[in-house]
Amino acid sequence: MAQILISDPTLRDGNHAVQHRLNEEQIRRYAAAANAARVAIVEVGHGNGLGASSLQVGEALLSDADMLRIAREELSDVKLGAFGIPGFATMRRDLDVAIDAGADVFRVGAHCTEADLTERHITYLREQEREVYGVLMMCHMATPDRLVEEARKMESYGAQGVIVMDSAGAFLTHDLQDRIARLVEGTQIAIGFHGHNNLCLAVANSVAAVNAGATILDGTARGFGAGAGNTELEVLVAVLAELGHDTGIDLYKVLDAADLAEEELVKQLPHTDSVGIVSGLAGVFSGYSKPVRRIARDFGVDPRDVFFALGRREVIAGQEDVILEVAMALRDAVEDQRIEQQDDEIREAEEARS
Amino acid sequence: MAQILISDPTLRDGNHAVQHRLNEEQIRRYAAAANAARVAIVEVGHGNGLGASSLQVGEALLSDADMLRIAREELSDVKLGAFGIPGFATMRRDLDVAIDAGADVFRVGAHCTEADLTERHITYLREQEREVYGVLMMCHMATPDRLVEEARKMESYGAQGVIVMDSAGAFLTHDLQDRIARLVEGTQIAIGFHGHNNLCLAVANSVAAVNAGATILDGTARGFGAGAGNTELEVLVAVLAELGHDTGIDLYKVLDAADLAEEELVKQLPHTDSVGIVSGLAGVFSGYSKPVRRIARDFGVDPRDVFFALGRREVIAGQEDVILEVAMALRDAVEDQRIEQQDDEIREAEEARS
Repeated sequence: MAQILISDPTLRDGNHAVQHRLNEEQIRRYAAAANAARVAIVEVGHGNGLGASSLQVGEALLSDADMLRIAREELSDVKLGAFGIPGFATMRRDLDVAIDAGADVFRVGAHCTEADLTERHITYLREQEREVYGVLMMCHMATPDRLVEEARKMESYGAQGVIVMDSAGAFLTHDLQDRIARLVEGTQIAIGFHGHNNLCLAVANSVAAVNAGATILDGTARGFGAGAGNTELEVLVAVLAELGHDTGIDLYKVLDAADLAEEELVKQLPHTDSVGIVSGLAGVFSGYSKPVRRIARDFGVDPRDVFFALGRREVIAGQEDVILEVAMALRDAVEDQRIEQQDDEIREAEEARS
Repeated sequence: MAQILISDPTLRDGNHAVQHRLNEEQIRRYAAAANAARVAIVEVGHGNGLGASSLQVGEALLSDADMLRIAREELSDVKLGAFGIPGFATMRRDLDVAIDAGADVFRVGAHCTEADLTERHITYLREQEREVYGVLMMCHMATPDRLVEEARKMESYGAQGVIVMDSAGAFLTHDLQDRIARLVEGTQIAIGFHGHNNLCLAVANSVAAVNAGATILDGTARGFGAGAGNTELEVLVAVLAELGHDTGIDLYKVLDAADLAEEELVKQLPHTDSVGIVSGLAGVFSGYSKPVRRIARDFGVDPRDVFFALGRREVIAGQEDVILEVAMALRDAVEDQRIEQQDDEIREAEEARS
């Protein structure tokens, strides 16, 4: 049975669910609880990572430095993790802030076909003797071959592992398992999985990833995180233990941490709603939910049709302007259909008269 | 790819989550929505089935006859199902009530090692030319051989299928898949699966059941049901469609039904809390949650320890008096340990003095 490294981004991905407003007390108390449970890594920060706090994607209540420093004070036995997406995170300013605040472990993320963008950050962080993992986001959008190619790039930059992020919660289990197996075979470094629950498969997919050779899994307390929520950390720990895998985590204490998160961090427990299911099926990042709902309403079209159309266009975060285009096209199609139907009715009426 | 029969017990298992207080309007509106979605079977009634309404297990707001009749009026294209556990349900009184109210499909349930108890009900219902399935409850508590033996009994009574009920949400996926495969091999009738989410595996287990040859699956809108909730119907339909299986259900309309359930039926969305996880791990029916919490508090012991102790004793529904016994034993053990520790301290102190 395998040794599984559990990384807990409750205080980072969970920030998405509260508009990045986690406060000092919340960070302190949850970090202390995760420390007591001996979770391997606690990742802390703005939902979109270092340097991302802004009017456009949401202003965090606390600075990156403050969030990391507060957590650091509580993590006596557990590593402190930071996440950064080059573009949001700038190399010196944001990475140095996190290093100075005491981050031990860094995740450097990029869209699944754009590992090149992580080179400078990974190289720099390795020079600073940090533990560094590459993160490939929206992994359902790349072929298995392409994923291996991108992971190898990260490996060549010095990443000590690559994390497959199912940002849209779109993976069916067999599909994920195949890709993880390919990555394990095609690289020399650790492979990890970060799941979301749009299809209620995050725990099952995590187990499948381990069966395929993954040795790193992410989970958050009660699934606290973006959209339909993440893999439930405490369930993951319980199920892995049942399967005989070793996470080094105390079951009762991680249950306590989840109870604390439910009481003190979570405004509304994450759940898989209809829009979440459709965005998962369509393979569209859940961050699209709010604008899709709003624009669909404005144009009188079904938001589910909008999601599927966005999925066919393979949109990624940052392309929200496409929603308008898609909604207009759908409205026009509906309108065309209506006119055609009217024409048919007129023709039939005329034929009936003649 | 397989043709999968979907049975929807939202209006029966969901009644557990609202103390059996579903009202006429709720039954009517959800049944109409499920009818529009073309769910194959809509099961309606008290959470514990026909004849179960009582002070002890909870009084339903409406009589069995009324619940079935209201749903019947809305189900023009979908079969009406009733569930009965012999003991709660008496043969003539309750079964005839359901037949008269227009139930097409019956599920006759028993603990997984007690199929014998279903013989008279199954035989009678088949004589009345109803569609009849046997249900084996708490299936994690029987060996695969025993399950096959019990299912064969139901087959010999005339059941047209046997449903494996994971009442405690205790099944790990590989374990369930093995048992389903054994049942498919060992019987000539349809095999089904009814899952719960204590380990967040209900959808994955349902897919695994299909992979092993099951052709009937249960799911409820948003997982509305006992304890940590059921397999999410609308997610199940979406995932089965993605996998190429045919359920005959309209995706958008089943999403609409789930949205309606969330708005109009569900008081609090089901979720997997710490007690749910532990009861799943321990293999104890979630109905134990409330008394366990209360008694654990009274005796100053950890409710999780109580659950695991109950699991070791293999309790089933109706044995709630064991909780008290277990809690007392745990308290005594804690007390003994405390006294032993005091003795040790006294001895050490005396040795230090001498």
